[in-house]
Amino acid sequence: MKKSLLAAGMALAMASGAALAQVKPDVLVKQRQAVMTLQGKYFGPIAGMASGKVSPYNADVVSRNATYLENLAQMPWDGFQPSTKDVKSAALPAVWEQNAKFTELADRLQAETGKLAQAARARDEAGVKAQFGAVGKVCGACHQDFRMKQ
Amino acid sequence: MKKSLLAAGMALAMASGAALAQVKPDVLVKQRQAVMTLQGKYFGPIAGMASGKVSPYNADVVSRNATYLENLAQMPWDGFQPSTKDVKSAALPAVWEQNAKFTELADRLQAETGKLAQAARARDEAGVKAQFGAVGKVCGACHQDFRMKQ
Repeated sequence: MKKSLLAAGMALAMASGAALAQVKPDVLVKQRQAVMTLQGKYFGPIAGMASGKVSPYNADVVSRNATYLENLAQMPWDGFQPSTKDVKSAALPAVWEQNAKFTELADRLQAETGKLAQAARARDEAGVKAQFGAVGKVCGACHQDFRMKQ
Repeated sequence: MKKSLLAAGMALAMASGAALAQVKPDVLVKQRQAVMTLQGKYFGPIAGMASGKVSPYNADVVSRNATYLENLAQMPWDGFQPSTKDVKSAALPAVWEQNAKFTELADRLQAETGKLAQAARARDEAGVKAQFGAVGKVCGACHQDFRMKQ
């Protein structure tokens, strides 16, 4: 019984656990889209509270969400393999045609979410309010040039 | 220009950033499914390397993945709201009918991934190899009782 549960868990893990080069393009797209979905889940409440549109400000939620976001911001990029160019998604060809610019924005997102998480964990509400816009700007800048208009 | 990018980023964030109670059931399902997708992405290579099916063992990748997994293991559960019962997904009614058992497994996943991440960050290869199976077992146990057979 214990062994079969383990086997089931392992089979599941192995199915998505091949080396990156062997991951199918449609799986890569699904994985990177999953990250975008979760970045929205956790940045949304931060933006709401930091902008004053959602109240009261909850430093515990902001700290938790910003830490998740800092992790998530590292996750999408290896999903933008050239092998995924022909998979239906909102990614524009510019991702590969202007890859240096795309990579620069990817790096900026990681830097800005890192700063946000640091302020959030320090319970520095003023720091979070000063920093959340920088994160939102990178989201918007990348979507403007690299994502199909929705 | 800067302002409009910020506005775009904020609009995006606000769309998914309402208080949890206001998040639409289909969005909750999409978010929790996104977590499952990413848990697979990051646990897979750990299971592969720890079981010896993928080599060589890369302690840096294992440490990074296990830290992501530790974070991800905290994320799915608030997506299993009763409001999502009627949204098409692989979740079985048992999630709500045997919710105490489901919650216990959710807690166990967080505990086991926490231990795994601790060993992984300490570059304790033997510890990772001793612990990864406990994580896989919780995945398998929860899927067996609470997830539609795929």
